[in-house]
Amino acid sequence: MAKTFQQLTQILDELRVAERSIGLVPTMGALHAGHLSLVERSRVVADTTIVSIFVNPTQFAPTEDLAKYPRPLERDLEQLQKAGVSVAFVPEVAEIYPDDCTTSIVAPRVAQQLEGEYRPSHFGGVCTVVLKLLHLIPAEVAFFGEKDFQQLAVIRQMAKDLNLVTRIEGCPIIRESDGLAMSSRNVYLSTAEREIAASLNQTLSFVEGQINQGETDGHILMAEMRQRLIDAGVSDIDYAVLAQPSNLEIVDEVTEDCVALIACHVGQTRLLDNRVIQVD
Amino acid sequence: MAKTFQQLTQILDELRVAERSIGLVPTMGALHAGHLSLVERSRVVADTTIVSIFVNPTQFAPTEDLAKYPRPLERDLEQLQKAGVSVAFVPEVAEIYPDDCTTSIVAPRVAQQLEGEYRPSHFGGVCTVVLKLLHLIPAEVAFFGEKDFQQLAVIRQMAKDLNLVTRIEGCPIIRESDGLAMSSRNVYLSTAEREIAASLNQTLSFVEGQINQGETDGHILMAEMRQRLIDAGVSDIDYAVLAQPSNLEIVDEVTEDCVALIACHVGQTRLLDNRVIQVD
Repeated sequence: MAKTFQQLTQILDELRVAERSIGLVPTMGALHAGHLSLVERSRVVADTTIVSIFVNPTQFAPTEDLAKYPRPLERDLEQLQKAGVSVAFVPEVAEIYPDDCTTSIVAPRVAQQLEGEYRPSHFGGVCTVVLKLLHLIPAEVAFFGEKDFQQLAVIRQMAKDLNLVTRIEGCPIIRESDGLAMSSRNVYLSTAEREIAASLNQTLSFVEGQINQGETDGHILMAEMRQRLIDAGVSDIDYAVLAQPSNLEIVDEVTEDCVALIACHVGQTRLLDNRVIQVD
Repeated sequence: MAKTFQQLTQILDELRVAERSIGLVPTMGALHAGHLSLVERSRVVADTTIVSIFVNPTQFAPTEDLAKYPRPLERDLEQLQKAGVSVAFVPEVAEIYPDDCTTSIVAPRVAQQLEGEYRPSHFGGVCTVVLKLLHLIPAEVAFFGEKDFQQLAVIRQMAKDLNLVTRIEGCPIIRESDGLAMSSRNVYLSTAEREIAASLNQTLSFVEGQINQGETDGHILMAEMRQRLIDAGVSDIDYAVLAQPSNLEIVDEVTEDCVALIACHVGQTRLLDNRVIQVD
């Protein structure tokens, strides 16, 4: 495990001499099967996989759950060892953001809607930390989960806009047996909330079914998504929409592949889920 | 000469195979002896020197001189060839900023005062293009003139904040025989204006002399700088200050090394100059 830049540099020097390609899996820790699927993919693609664990303060708003975000470091490191990861980079906040650090990134336009409306400073913080990690770790590929669909779109666009050499690869959502998308925040859910939370995936299946059966009116479909979530007991829906996968603009009429995206609150916990829906 | 990313990549591939280190000299063209001194330094430090020529639109405000900025490309390329530079990167605007490019950089705090007050969007544009160039060209060192003292401070801080691997090196100001700091914008000056423009360097020499003789009151010194410039016929002074070299904060009492910085208009032309003043 490397905690400091100095320790990291030593490891990277050895990898460079050995001419080993690097796959980077940036995480905030509290690792679950979703993260481990990124590791698995990286181990196929790259010679060495580096997993960073860093709960990035700049992507949390003051009202959000930075303080209570789970940090089970020992358990994370054990999981990584079992998964065959030899290098974990676990920096302190002061190492990544020293007091005089004042440069940041303006996230690309695709960051503005959906999450951007509810978490205006979120993607700027994500872009800044991902860019810093990609400068620190010369990865050939970096892996991100499709569960954070908009985040993946934002990072892909940033990588293109800033001419980054690292390739960005998205990996499929991994789900619990009841269909709930894996998330480090699922530990916040009570048993009762957990049942309600399953409605996100059920709603995505429902809307996919409606589209497969020929419904093309985006606004009817989105109203039905909301209704399903409300009926299931979701307390507050930030959005439940159909959007174009490339730019996340809302789809009025479903004529080609689209993505259904949900962000809502179950109790105190904010959950995200999405599904890309193929249209023949 | 490489115009496209594709042509650039081919050259970079060859350099990588040959294990040649790269020195990058980013310019907006209209090359003068100042630029050539950067090239000369790069040829000492690195195996291969790449000079980029790109008049970067995002660092000009709509009211500024983007359209009339000199673009003597053939002459520039001849000068580079004479200076022993084998690779010039001369991209089109659409190559650097395709229509969907919407990610940008928030320049570090040191960008806010002085130039930042008069050109609020300038350093964001500078940081964005420099970062893109450093992603496109894996340089070991990049060279910038000390004539744009704040720009150098901003780029150094960005490189530190974003953990860039490229080392940033500043090179001394090169002056005309009458002391005028070399600048691509000097071609805008009439003969009469050219005489007035010499007062910038004279004012810097004067304030240095005053400090050497023991004057320590920053506000007296700055008032004297302004007066000298006005007496010489400078039409409009944006600033004429003494600042701390590290953070460009104004110096009230000269107790250690400081930098005298001037930005003013001579006729329609905005000129910059500066001098670091050693204090024993």
